[in-house]
Amino acid sequence: MTDTTITLTDTAEGVWHRDFRLNDGNGPRLAGSPQWSITRETLRGGTSAGVDVVHLFNGALRLSILPTRGMGLWKGLFRSGASEIELGWQSPVRQPVHPAFVNLAEHTGLGWLQGFNEWLCRCGLAWNGPPGVDVVTRADGTVSEAPLTLHGRIANTPAHHVEAGVSADGPGRLWVRGVVDEVMMFGPCLRLISTVETQAGSNGFRITDEVQNLAGRPGEMQLLYHTNIGRPFVEAGSRFFAAVRELAPRDAAAARGLGTWPDYEPPTPEYAEQVFLIRPVADEHGQTRVLLSNAARERGLSLRFNIRELPCFSLWKCTRAEADGCVTGLEPATGFPNFKSFERGRGRVIALQPEETWRAGIEFAVHAGRDAVADVEREIESL
Amino acid sequence: MTDTTITLTDTAEGVWHRDFRLNDGNGPRLAGSPQWSITRETLRGGTSAGVDVVHLFNGALRLSILPTRGMGLWKGLFRSGASEIELGWQSPVRQPVHPAFVNLAEHTGLGWLQGFNEWLCRCGLAWNGPPGVDVVTRADGTVSEAPLTLHGRIANTPAHHVEAGVSADGPGRLWVRGVVDEVMMFGPCLRLISTVETQAGSNGFRITDEVQNLAGRPGEMQLLYHTNIGRPFVEAGSRFFAAVRELAPRDAAAARGLGTWPDYEPPTPEYAEQVFLIRPVADEHGQTRVLLSNAARERGLSLRFNIRELPCFSLWKCTRAEADGCVTGLEPATGFPNFKSFERGRGRVIALQPEETWRAGIEFAVHAGRDAVADVEREIESL
Amino acid sequence: MTDTTITLTDTAEGVWHRDFRLNDGNGPRLAGSPQWSITRETLRGGTSAGVDVVHLFNGALRLSILPTRGMGLWKGLFRSGASEIELGWQSPVRQPVHPAFVNLAEHTGLGWLQGFNEWLCRCGLAWNGPPGVDVVTRADGTVSEAPLTLHGRIANTPAHHVEAGVSADGPGRLWVRGVVDEVMMFGPCLRLISTVETQAGSNGFRITDEVQNLAGRPGEMQLLYHTNIGRPFVEAGSRFFAAVRELAPRDAAAARGLGTWPDYEPPTPEYAEQVFLIRPVADEHGQTRVLLSNAARERGLSLRFNIRELPCFSLWKCTRAEADGCVTGLEPATGFPNFKSFERGRGRVIALQPEETWRAGIEFAVHAGRDAVADVEREIESL
Repeated sequence: MTDTTITLTDTAEGVWHRDFRLNDGNGPRLAGSPQWSITRETLRGGTSAGVDVVHLFNGALRLSILPTRGMGLWKGLFRSGASEIELGWQSPVRQPVHPAFVNLAEHTGLGWLQGFNEWLCRCGLAWNGPPGVDVVTRADGTVSEAPLTLHGRIANTPAHHVEAGVSADGPGRLWVRGVVDEVMMFGPCLRLISTVETQAGSNGFRITDEVQNLAGRPGEMQLLYHTNIGRPFVEAGSRFFAAVRELAPRDAAAARGLGTWPDYEPPTPEYAEQVFLIRPVADEHGQTRVLLSNAARERGLSLRFNIRELPCFSLWKCTRAEADGCVTGLEPATGFPNFKSFERGRGRVIALQPEETWRAGIEFAVHAGRDAVADVEREIESL
Repeated sequence: MTDTTITLTDTAEGVWHRDFRLNDGNGPRLAGSPQWSITRETLRGGTSAGVDVVHLFNGALRLSILPTRGMGLWKGLFRSGASEIELGWQSPVRQPVHPAFVNLAEHTGLGWLQGFNEWLCRCGLAWNGPPGVDVVTRADGTVSEAPLTLHGRIANTPAHHVEAGVSADGPGRLWVRGVVDEVMMFGPCLRLISTVETQAGSNGFRITDEVQNLAGRPGEMQLLYHTNIGRPFVEAGSRFFAAVRELAPRDAAAARGLGTWPDYEPPTPEYAEQVFLIRPVADEHGQTRVLLSNAARERGLSLRFNIRELPCFSLWKCTRAEADGCVTGLEPATGFPNFKSFERGRGRVIALQPEETWRAGIEFAVHAGRDAVADVEREIESL
Repeated sequence: MTDTTITLTDTAEGVWHRDFRLNDGNGPRLAGSPQWSITRETLRGGTSAGVDVVHLFNGALRLSILPTRGMGLWKGLFRSGASEIELGWQSPVRQPVHPAFVNLAEHTGLGWLQGFNEWLCRCGLAWNGPPGVDVVTRADGTVSEAPLTLHGRIANTPAHHVEAGVSADGPGRLWVRGVVDEVMMFGPCLRLISTVETQAGSNGFRITDEVQNLAGRPGEMQLLYHTNIGRPFVEAGSRFFAAVRELAPRDAAAARGLGTWPDYEPPTPEYAEQVFLIRPVADEHGQTRVLLSNAARERGLSLRFNIRELPCFSLWKCTRAEADGCVTGLEPATGFPNFKSFERGRGRVIALQPEETWRAGIEFAVHAGRDAVADVEREIESL
């Protein structure tokens, strides 16, 4: 047995390793990379005070994971030869924001935007999409109204259990797992168990999520992976690649951009965001892949996921001025980012029975060099 | 003089003992129990990050007090011979929640439910009961509107002063006292001084609360002690005992359960909560007692209080599925948990003059064994 | 080069000096005072938990600066001979409140009052004034609605960068600088860089603020300096001195007090606050000065500012019972504390272009003794 798992945080057990450090010095030797590490730091000052960051480094790829923000990924960095590629984007909100500084209900339910700056953040679990009042008519005819805030609570809910592990099998594997409860008395009771896993020395990682209904009654869930990418992937001439079965513009602004939907313009002040709702083509196992590439087709970021788990995909184009957050979102999800009641009417809200668990995985990869990018393009075309 | 009092926390004086520990090793010898301790820990991780817990152990009874949550009692544990009895209940919210993660105004004023999991939490001080808009017409005819959130602010307001003490008098006494200010400029300015006190080796404890009006003008107060009990007291066949002068079901759901109001059913998914509003009978000093006993009448929890201080009592039956928080509430209070303006109209909102102090005490006891439970039953019957 | 600057806090750089102490023992010798210090503490307990305070002492004047509350000034203390003069006021909210305990949207947008107790707090940056819904019609005819909460976000936003410095030039200078970002995606993106600076041994200090528009599009700003003064400056017979060009009562309550607007009554329970809106007279450089003096004209606090930077001044008289916060506010500002849309209509909302910076400075001085107070009175009269 070559696996080691260490608990960094467990609220119930009183576990808290302030200066956690697991690396090539005190851990096993990994064939895939002589160097690797998993460390934790707690940010101080500003609206970041108290935010935990777990840094996962596989020898080539660095990931900064935010247990305090629902196991989102803040940033990444990929080293390819002598060059480094930043993974993420530059939000006007510069540093990770502690949920104590985010009032989801403020700004007419748009308070979520006060803390939005991650490379990957989840929208969910009980709901995602725009704010509004969800009117639900029950079987017995009674009607309840629930005010929903933008993109739900999970990204502003901290993990109460965090563990990290390493295995020397094959090239070596590193992982970080967090457990986040989105619960309230008389309300939704959903648990996210999220694992970020990477092979030593590799150019990618996998996120595997489970969502459990902890309640003694059926519960609804929605989940969207808001993967946000800016420079150096987004620039004039960048292109998005996907095998598209169906595509629809979300609104009039997107409809006007339909003719050039996969292509990117330069950063544009006051750019009106465009969202395209996509049903991807998949292989016989349900697997599909999407790619964002820069103008020269020499840097790419791809996501591979299964449409049986995540049947819907949204492309969010928001190439505003750099100072305002020039960004695009690649967003595999259980549904489309419409208001929950609309999605419910289309059968795109998941109903979980008591103790039932939903699962999904996404593989992320960074592609450096024209050949690497072209390989992924070909794979997508072959779908 | 055998009394020792130590300040654990005082914001104004800059006092903060991180690793506070007072016990049989460094304190006096207590006749009632060779073992005892008062310690503090600060929780880490999840939504508990930063929550202080003061653990009070009298040799038989352990109490976990939450200064960060308005001096609520999180959990208890009573050791009787070889067996241990858990005091509290299992909320879907598993661990104590820091107020920074509770937005009282969210969920149409029901955000309080995001942090609700204590054995005993206070509802108050300026108001308790359901959310709504309190319309107040002043003497000069002007009208003001104040939005009230569920059960008020006190349970999500931390104590700025906490002290603990021990006395070797008699069997020995242990106590923890906290001071919590529920204040805002131009708003209610009420101070809670709460003392939890227990005799070494005993099966019970006493809570003594003072509420002071700090303002230079009269102020209103409401206070309800939300004492929440689950297993192993609540099960099919459990029974509530009280000397009842008047009883009224709160609503239609409770009216349907009126015929079996003191009896408990097994945990029932989608159970519609029932609340019974009670005016207890008391002795010539105003003292009354209530008891919850399990089906075999061999485990009981009793509360003794004075109806001159706490004239109203609510029984909250909420025996939902275990996963949803199967619980009952024994709730002595200054009024009934109706909306504040309704209670004001019935004369059940307390008006405190400047510097005026309201006081109340409740004695809690755990009863293990058929004889002990039967004794309390008899005492209640004799009322 | 005799200047030393030390970074206490920088979130992005991971800098955090817990036990920061710079003083006459480890720093340069200052001609103006043999004693001086700049230290930091982090408050614990109550609603102050986690609040950073930077104490700046110039040998005569002590200032407590709150990086966690937008670089507000909590309290001051001036030593003149054997006597000490407290600077500030006694709010019902006794200790500095961490923003995590303030819900700006609560209480119909008046939640800001839960944390209001500083000697000086800023109201802004994107808006100040009363709560309401700001309806904005854009050039293209579209209308947006933004709910604004009382006095904006800056006083409840912590600095992500704090530095302190000392220079032995002349009498010696001490300063503390903080950087606070009031930002959100798709929202206002304004940065405050605030410097508090004092000469060793002096009776005063200067605040110099810069506000930068970080966005790639024009942005609005409003800023009011809520300088709050109680005892021993405010008492029956205290008087406010200013060179007034125009003065208007804010409402009917103020209109009733117009005849005695610069004079103070004793603390009065249920006093209805009076606000006077003033356009000051200035010298040829735009400089003006205002003074509050106690009844005996032997203690004064003056503010000197430039009407080209801060053209508007509000006098807030709120001499309620001491227990309710007997206080007056001297409030230089970019506009008057009306609702933002009203101020916008009067041309008193500042529009900042991308990367544009707004600047202002205010000099505060404490005057002890009849002669010192009379000197300032004469200076104001000469305007």
